Amino acid sequence: MANIGDFSILATDGAARTGVLHTAHGVVQTPIFMPVGTVGSVKAIAPDDLEDIGAEIILGNTYHLYLRPGDDLVARRGGLHEFNAWRKPILTDSGGFQVFSLNELRKIEEEGVTFRSHLDGSKHLFTPEKVVSIQRNLNSDIMMVLDECVPYGADKAYTARSLELTTRWARRCRDAYPQGSAGNLLFAITQGGFFKDLRERSIAQLTGMADFDGFALGGLSVGESKPEMMEMLYHCAPLLPAEKPRYLMGVGTPLDIINGINAGIDMFDCVLPTRNARNGTLYTSVGKVNIKRQEYAEDDGPLDPNCSCYTCRTFSRAYLRHLFQAKEILSFRLNSIHNLTYFLDTVRGARKAIAEGTFASYMKQYEEIYPQEVVARS
Amino acid sequence: MANIGDFSILATDGAARTGVLHTAHGVVQTPIFMPVGTVGSVKAIAPDDLEDIGAEIILGNTYHLYLRPGDDLVARRGGLHEFNAWRKPILTDSGGFQVFSLNELRKIEEEGVTFRSHLDGSKHLFTPEKVVSIQRNLNSDIMMVLDECVPYGADKAYTARSLELTTRWARRCRDAYPQGSAGNLLFAITQGGFFKDLRERSIAQLTGMADFDGFALGGLSVGESKPEMMEMLYHCAPLLPAEKPRYLMGVGTPLDIINGINAGIDMFDCVLPTRNARNGTLYTSVGKVNIKRQEYAEDDGPLDPNCSCYTCRTFSRAYLRHLFQAKEILSFRLNSIHNLTYFLDTVRGARKAIAEGTFASYMKQYEEIYPQEVVARS
Repeated sequence: MANIGDFSILATDGAARTGVLHTAHGVVQTPIFMPVGTVGSVKAIAPDDLEDIGAEIILGNTYHLYLRPGDDLVARRGGLHEFNAWRKPILTDSGGFQVFSLNELRKIEEEGVTFRSHLDGSKHLFTPEKVVSIQRNLNSDIMMVLDECVPYGADKAYTARSLELTTRWARRCRDAYPQGSAGNLLFAITQGGFFKDLRERSIAQLTGMADFDGFALGGLSVGESKPEMMEMLYHCAPLLPAEKPRYLMGVGTPLDIINGINAGIDMFDCVLPTRNARNGTLYTSVGKVNIKRQEYAEDDGPLDPNCSCYTCRTFSRAYLRHLFQAKEILSFRLNSIHNLTYFLDTVRGARKAIAEGTFASYMKQYEEIYPQEVVARS
Repeated sequence: MANIGDFSILATDGAARTGVLHTAHGVVQTPIFMPVGTVGSVKAIAPDDLEDIGAEIILGNTYHLYLRPGDDLVARRGGLHEFNAWRKPILTDSGGFQVFSLNELRKIEEEGVTFRSHLDGSKHLFTPEKVVSIQRNLNSDIMMVLDECVPYGADKAYTARSLELTTRWARRCRDAYPQGSAGNLLFAITQGGFFKDLRERSIAQLTGMADFDGFALGGLSVGESKPEMMEMLYHCAPLLPAEKPRYLMGVGTPLDIINGINAGIDMFDCVLPTRNARNGTLYTSVGKVNIKRQEYAEDDGPLDPNCSCYTCRTFSRAYLRHLFQAKEILSFRLNSIHNLTYFLDTVRGARKAIAEGTFASYMKQYEEIYPQEVVARS
């Protein structure tokens, strides 16, 4: 009988691994991609769509839900799962990333971070204890600690001081809610910018605490070049404990995800599939399709002949182009259904390839689809 | 064996009637409400949603589809049903109403109406023959003739001249595509403004031609008061041939539709359910709900406890309010699913009541839900 938080690795292929994570709202098969539902809905997508797409876990955003409708209000509804009618696992980020993106509007101190709401300018304080309390109100299956995500280009002295603060905040988060208290798992977030020694230090400090349920790599995909990101990813992933889930936050393109899996990462999230869907950029088995292009105006074929999603089963490229050009709301949903299916197919295919020991050739397929993103590694 | 265009009345209750209209893409049970899909999609709603809602026929718009993506392009796709993946009946309006709404941008002559596109300012001519040709390209099941919808407040002399033009244009439409040529039915549109004698004249002229497949009342719900609309509706509906479908164009609220049915009308369309859905105004069995109101912030009940739509089965008023307040795209779809279900439930209930001979009490229920809309009739 599995307990909440149990993580079993079922197969490995090189550094890549496939497994199962047990949460309070069911199991998640890894590697997994998590659609982003910032303010309590994956944009343009309902729970019935998520079921059809085969989503296993979605993301919610602590910062946004705290401000509107308020985590207390969500708690009175019975938590986020009851509120948004998605009864499978939910991970919530800590709000740190959003707050630190506010730039002018926030101030970092030992106690926590003070910021002004982007909605009404009101002043708020996020402490490590507060973000755990909010996430418990949301009743997320996987909570994230408060961290400082240092901006790309931060100098070494700043980054070093920052990672120490992130470590102290992580400790305070865990102490506010000791492991095993209830069904909400808590993951720590490693930082360290683009300095390998600082990354190692952050990982050593956080993984030195045995009472986190998983570990994330934060602060990547924040403006650095693809080679820089890949160097940090491949350097850091093996340093995270093998027996716990590893989460690469906010990443990324399909090939980024494949690289993450290749480096031993288990979990991914990104707004890319949904945001690009709304911009008309669609991912297919033969590469990216910009659906607004004239060449699709009379294209009667499906968006992706190798995709079995509702959009590809039902509509032509010509119709999808028309909807996009006419700015019809339906365009957002149909494009999002497809792109999310593509990202989930990517991780489903990876799981199968790892189980069959064919991940290297699976990865090669993606490198052939996205040749311009391939980074030579020594 | 029924032929395309056959219309059978199955039961009557006073002037109200329920029947079945046969079209090239299947039967339509009347009275029916037709969701409006202006540019080839019912806004925020996919064909799978329409199936769930129980829609039987939807509207397309000749003016919009002619301009974008172009009726020739749609014809090369196999028609509108193939293009938008809605395989059940489609009615297209002639574009007259939209063109005449352009005001400054159009010029009416015997030949037709010249107008400028709202998209790019390009100049176009709609003749009676042209709008039939466009609608045949779209392969709509029910085509509408080109008519002039006179604005509210037009004087009697103008209205009289206009209805004669509408009659001549109707004749030219029918002559361009004689009855029974193929599977596309053609309905005439009666006009006459708010002058009973002119309404009678228009109806007499058009119904005097036996070769139309149905007759519409046009030019109502164009800015007049509710009593003025009701007076014209109840005066004109019985003058339309009983053996052919009667269509009240662009109407209306749930109680307007109930009144239309009570007057003997069979078909309705209106943007109200979808437009109001996007504005947060929702129709329920206990009256209108403005979902953005604070009072719903913590309301865990369904939007309408007597509704079986996906929205009402799945979400609380609190969540629907949150989605609306947060301007989430999903709000448009969920609200539209509900409002369309409400309008279709209204006509489904009417059919049942007519068949059971209880339409008067059915109508009374709606008058009790919308008391402010009730018009005393002599």
